Amino acid sequence: MTVNAEWISVDWGTSHLRAWAMDGTEVVARATSDNGMGQLSKDDFEPALVELVGDWCGSAPVDVVACGMVGARQGWFEVPYAAVPTTPMPKTPMRIPDTTDRFRVFVVPGLKQAKPADVMRGEETQIAGFLSLNPGWDGVICLPGTHTKWAHISADEVVSFQTFMTGELFNLLSTASVLRHSIGDGWDQDAFAEAMDETLSRPERLAARLFGLRAGDLLDGQDPDRARARLSGMLIGTELAAARPYWLGQQVAVIGADALAGIYVQALARQGVPAQALSGTEMTLAGLIAARMTLETQT
Amino acid sequence: MTVNAEWISVDWGTSHLRAWAMDGTEVVARATSDNGMGQLSKDDFEPALVELVGDWCGSAPVDVVACGMVGARQGWFEVPYAAVPTTPMPKTPMRIPDTTDRFRVFVVPGLKQAKPADVMRGEETQIAGFLSLNPGWDGVICLPGTHTKWAHISADEVVSFQTFMTGELFNLLSTASVLRHSIGDGWDQDAFAEAMDETLSRPERLAARLFGLRAGDLLDGQDPDRARARLSGMLIGTELAAARPYWLGQQVAVIGADALAGIYVQALARQGVPAQALSGTEMTLAGLIAARMTLETQT
Repeated sequence: MTVNAEWISVDWGTSHLRAWAMDGTEVVARATSDNGMGQLSKDDFEPALVELVGDWCGSAPVDVVACGMVGARQGWFEVPYAAVPTTPMPKTPMRIPDTTDRFRVFVVPGLKQAKPADVMRGEETQIAGFLSLNPGWDGVICLPGTHTKWAHISADEVVSFQTFMTGELFNLLSTASVLRHSIGDGWDQDAFAEAMDETLSRPERLAARLFGLRAGDLLDGQDPDRARARLSGMLIGTELAAARPYWLGQQVAVIGADALAGIYVQALARQGVPAQALSGTEMTLAGLIAARMTLETQT
Repeated sequence: MTVNAEWISVDWGTSHLRAWAMDGTEVVARATSDNGMGQLSKDDFEPALVELVGDWCGSAPVDVVACGMVGARQGWFEVPYAAVPTTPMPKTPMRIPDTTDRFRVFVVPGLKQAKPADVMRGEETQIAGFLSLNPGWDGVICLPGTHTKWAHISADEVVSFQTFMTGELFNLLSTASVLRHSIGDGWDQDAFAEAMDETLSRPERLAARLFGLRAGDLLDGQDPDRARARLSGMLIGTELAAARPYWLGQQVAVIGADALAGIYVQALARQGVPAQALSGTEMTLAGLIAARMTLETQT
């Protein structure tokens, strides 16, 4: 089947490249590759895009609207951050100069916060997508992932946000530390909840309990799935302890991959916080459609 | 110069192999290699030892007394743990069977604790060495390293102990996480102290502040040496918060490499805790000499 894209939306993160062939607001095709920003040098971005979506383009140049680390300093082209407080997408996406006549590539700017110093690239598009579908929504958005973000939303603006390296810590500890010998692939919800409750009420326990996952295996043959759930629970419990000013007494929207968003929704429910889970991919797409509309308004 | 060892003492950890040619309690030669337990399979241990110290042996078999991960399940030969409370070296080192006629190899047993589950291999020898030099000493011993141990010592026994993965977390975060781009090789004592005070009083801040080391670089060009000291301070502050039941109101002996032990002594001094720093290598050697004496008593 031949695909002819009116425009192309792209989610280009550190470890992934996802693209959708669009006809207005409709997706007509999708494609993914692992050509994330982390694997590419400056000159590799355009070929990686051609390889993935070249077939979707005709003779006229096609608009590409991208978000994520593609706009970082180590990305294709550095796009300056917008400072909070601000609407999540205050500026028209910036055009990358000097691309071939195949594409006109635009990148959504990330957000920055002066104090405490913090940055995001990609999540602002998901927040914009969520707000485009839920205009006037006030509350807190949690975006779990490698670097989980918590954002306070009021009057359509991102008021403040904070990043937690919870996902990266989980990956490093479960695959690159001594704990890797004792961590399985499965899950144990009770073990998760117990560990989360412990570090949420006593965050210093994280440091005290981590090695117990290894010792419990050596001495008692602890179930590795239980160990995995306990590690996740300890890390998320510590995060929730530190993010309390964000979620306490708020309504929370959790935007992310199904399984991970579900874990956060359940964790928040245990604290009496009502939370809804939303698909990260759908919010990214809604945000890229909103970004594309600002281009059309401009031209 | 020809070296003839009466016996050989060996510190065989995950990442290193250190050996001393001994004449009674005197060191007559020393040698090191990076043939740590982590690089070796079962059949590699004896050749690694021959390669390092074969020149020290004559025609008669030489006693080798070793401590550390060499006695772990993944080591040369698994030596069962002794359970606390116990003197640090309650049993005669165990002889490894089936070695060549070049050596008679003995390994010091590690210690285990049932609840909370914990284990050590190697540190018990340093503790035994310290107590052999300081008989009757009561207090708390801190052994900072990849996996920092805190041990409560009373009446010549290890009453309880606890492991913190502080060193491994520092290594992973500074070399394998996104923070690696923002971490230098230097040091800033004020930045260390400030970060340590922050997480010692508010341990949940660790999760909240880690990514700030990256964002502070991206937005403000934060000094990478300052970032390194802050990362260390945050991690050690969290450890000290969790280890408070160990050090509060106690005299503390810190056994470890010079620079690291000095950091812990200064950190404890800020909490009003008197601490002395001792060389890890010297304590290991004193412990191995003590272990050797139990062999002589036996034969």
